[in-house]
Amino acid sequence: MRFKAEIDVMPLDALLDPQGKAVTGSMETIGLGSIDGVRVGRHVRLFVEANSAQDAESKVEEACKKILANQIMESYSYSIEEA
Amino acid sequence: MRFKAEIDVMPLDALLDPQGKAVTGSMETIGLGSIDGVRVGRHVRLFVEANSAQDAESKVEEACKKILANQIMESYSYSIEEA
Repeated sequence: MRFKAEIDVMPLDALLDPQGKAVTGSMETIGLGSIDGVRVGRHVRLFVEANSAQDAESKVEEACKKILANQIMESYSYSIEEA
Repeated sequence: MRFKAEIDVMPLDALLDPQGKAVTGSMETIGLGSIDGVRVGRHVRLFVEANSAQDAESKVEEACKKILANQIMESYSYSIEEA
Protein backbone atom coordinates (compact mmCIF):
# COMPACT_ATOMS: atom_id res chain seq x y z
CA MET A 1 0.00 0.00 0.00
CA ARG A 2 1.05 3.53 -0.71
CA PHE A 3 0.71 6.24 1.90
CA LYS A 4 1.20 9.98 1.80
CA ALA A 5 2.71 11.76 4.79
CA GLU A 6 2.50 15.48 5.51
CA ILE A 7 5.19 16.46 8.00
CA ASP A 8 5.75 19.76 9.80
CA VAL A 9 9.17 20.49 11.27
CA MET A 10 9.18 23.59 13.48
CA PRO A 11 11.77 25.34 15.63
CA LEU A 12 11.21 24.51 19.30
CA ASP A 13 9.11 27.11 21.12
CA ALA A 14 11.93 27.73 23.56
CA LEU A 15 14.27 28.84 20.76
CA LEU A 16 14.46 32.14 18.94
CA ASP A 17 13.36 32.08 15.33
CA PRO A 18 15.12 34.93 13.53
CA GLN A 19 13.42 34.18 10.21
CA GLY A 20 10.01 34.30 11.87
CA LYS A 21 10.94 37.53 13.60
CA ALA A 22 11.96 39.10 10.29
CA VAL A 23 8.66 38.05 8.71
CA THR A 24 6.71 39.51 11.66
CA GLY A 25 8.53 42.79 11.00
CA SER A 26 7.66 42.69 7.31
CA MET A 27 3.99 42.14 8.13
CA GLU A 28 3.97 45.42 10.03
CA THR A 29 5.67 47.15 7.10
CA ILE A 30 2.99 46.13 4.60
CA GLY A 31 0.15 47.11 6.91
CA LEU A 32 -0.56 43.72 8.44
CA GLY A 33 0.40 44.72 11.97
CA SER A 34 -2.39 42.52 13.32
CA ILE A 35 -0.24 39.50 12.46
CA ASP A 36 2.40 38.49 14.99
CA GLY A 37 4.17 35.52 16.50
CA VAL A 38 5.30 34.24 13.11
CA ARG A 39 7.42 31.11 13.22
CA VAL A 40 8.88 29.52 10.13
CA GLY A 41 9.70 25.84 9.75
CA ARG A 42 9.66 23.24 7.03
CA HIS A 43 6.86 21.26 5.48
CA VAL A 44 7.74 17.91 3.93
CA ARG A 45 5.45 15.80 1.77
CA LEU A 46 6.48 12.27 0.94
CA PHE A 47 5.17 8.90 -0.14
CA VAL A 48 5.90 5.60 1.50
CA GLU A 49 5.31 2.00 0.47
CA ALA A 50 4.24 0.00 3.50
CA ASN A 51 2.20 -3.04 4.47
CA SER A 52 -0.04 -1.16 6.86
CA ALA A 53 -0.68 2.30 8.25
CA GLN A 54 1.31 1.32 11.34
CA ASP A 55 4.26 0.23 9.22
CA ALA A 56 4.07 3.53 7.29
CA GLU A 57 4.01 5.45 10.55
CA SER A 58 7.11 3.71 11.88
CA LYS A 59 8.97 4.50 8.65
CA VAL A 60 7.94 8.14 8.72
CA GLU A 61 8.93 8.34 12.39
CA GLU A 62 12.37 6.96 11.52
CA ALA A 63 12.74 9.39 8.61
CA CYS A 64 11.87 12.33 10.89
CA LYS A 65 14.33 11.24 13.57
CA LYS A 66 17.22 10.43 11.23
CA ILE A 67 16.93 12.99 8.45
CA LEU A 68 14.11 15.47 8.51
CA ALA A 69 14.29 17.02 11.96
CA ASN A 70 17.14 18.05 14.22
CA GLN A 71 15.57 17.21 17.56
CA ILE A 72 17.90 19.48 19.48
CA MET A 73 16.36 22.50 17.80
CA GLU A 74 13.18 21.29 16.15
CA SER A 75 9.99 19.39 16.84
CA TYR A 76 8.01 17.50 14.24
CA SER A 77 4.46 16.32 13.71
CA TYR A 78 2.85 14.48 10.85
CA SER A 79 -0.31 13.02 9.44
CA ILE A 80 -0.45 9.95 7.22
CA GLU A 81 -3.17 8.87 4.84
CA GLU A 82 -3.52 6.28 2.12
CA ALA A 83 -2.46 7.78 -1.20
CA MET B 1 -10.41 37.75 18.60
CA ARG B 2 -7.14 35.96 18.18
CA PHE B 3 -6.67 33.30 15.53
CA LYS B 4 -3.87 30.89 14.79
CA ALA B 5 -3.01 30.05 11.18
CA GLU B 6 -1.00 27.06 10.00
CA ILE B 7 0.28 27.67 6.49
CA ASP B 8 2.04 25.31 4.08
CA VAL B 9 4.03 26.76 1.21
CA MET B 10 5.15 24.12 -1.28
CA PRO B 11 7.01 24.16 -4.61
CA LEU B 12 4.56 23.77 -7.49
CA ASP B 13 4.18 20.18 -8.67
CA ALA B 14 5.34 21.16 -12.15
CA LEU B 15 8.70 22.36 -10.82
CA LEU B 16 11.74 20.37 -9.85
CA ASP B 17 12.54 20.31 -6.14
CA PRO B 18 16.28 19.66 -5.78
CA GLN B 19 16.11 19.66 -1.98
CA GLY B 20 13.36 17.05 -2.02
CA LYS B 21 15.33 15.01 -4.51
CA ALA B 22 18.39 15.06 -2.27
CA VAL B 23 16.30 13.95 0.71
CA THR B 24 14.80 11.11 -1.34
CA GLY B 25 18.36 9.98 -2.08
CA SER B 26 19.31 10.12 1.59
CA MET B 27 16.30 7.97 2.51
CA GLU B 28 17.63 5.24 0.25
CA THR B 29 21.06 5.56 1.86
CA ILE B 30 19.77 4.98 5.38
CA GLY B 31 17.67 1.98 4.36
CA LEU B 32 14.36 3.78 3.87
CA GLY B 33 14.14 3.08 0.15
CA SER B 34 10.38 2.63 0.51
CA ILE B 35 10.10 6.41 0.87
CA ASP B 36 10.03 8.45 -2.33
CA GLY B 37 8.56 11.56 -3.91
CA VAL B 38 9.86 13.81 -1.14
CA ARG B 39 9.07 17.49 -1.61
CA VAL B 40 10.26 20.13 0.80
CA GLY B 41 8.53 23.43 1.42
CA ARG B 42 7.93 25.79 4.32
CA HIS B 43 5.54 25.67 7.21
CA VAL B 44 4.54 28.96 8.78
CA ARG B 45 2.63 29.40 12.03
CA LEU B 46 1.31 32.82 12.93
CA PHE B 47 -1.27 34.60 15.01
CA VAL B 48 -3.66 37.24 13.80
CA GLU B 49 -5.97 39.67 15.58
CA ALA B 50 -9.22 39.92 13.67
CA ASN B 51 -12.91 40.64 14.19
CA SER B 52 -14.08 37.39 12.68
CA ALA B 53 -12.79 34.19 11.13
CA GLN B 54 -13.49 35.69 7.71
CA ASP B 55 -11.48 38.78 8.54
CA ALA B 56 -8.62 36.57 9.78
CA GLU B 57 -8.75 34.56 6.58
CA SER B 58 -8.53 37.64 4.37
CA LYS B 59 -5.48 38.83 6.35
CA VAL B 60 -3.77 35.46 6.08
CA GLU B 61 -4.57 35.35 2.37
CA GLU B 62 -2.95 38.77 1.93
CA ALA B 63 0.11 37.72 3.96
CA CYS B 64 0.52 34.60 1.80
CA LYS B 65 0.22 36.55 -1.45
CA LYS B 66 2.47 39.44 -0.45
CA ILE B 67 5.14 37.86 1.71
CA LEU B 68 4.98 34.16 2.43
CA ALA B 69 4.66 32.56 -0.98
CA ASN B 70 6.17 33.29 -4.36
CA GLN B 71 3.22 32.31 -6.53
CA ILE B 72 5.37 31.85 -9.61
CA MET B 73 7.09 28.90 -7.98
CA GLU B 74 5.00 27.98 -4.96
CA SER B 75 1.48 27.16 -3.91
CA TYR B 76 0.08 27.69 -0.44
CA SER B 77 -2.68 26.32 1.72
CA TYR B 78 -3.70 27.10 5.27
CA SER B 79 -6.04 26.34 8.10
CA ILE B 80 -7.20 28.89 10.65
CA GLU B 81 -8.60 28.31 14.10
CA GLU B 82 -9.39 30.45 17.12
CA ALA B 83 -6.34 30.60 19.38
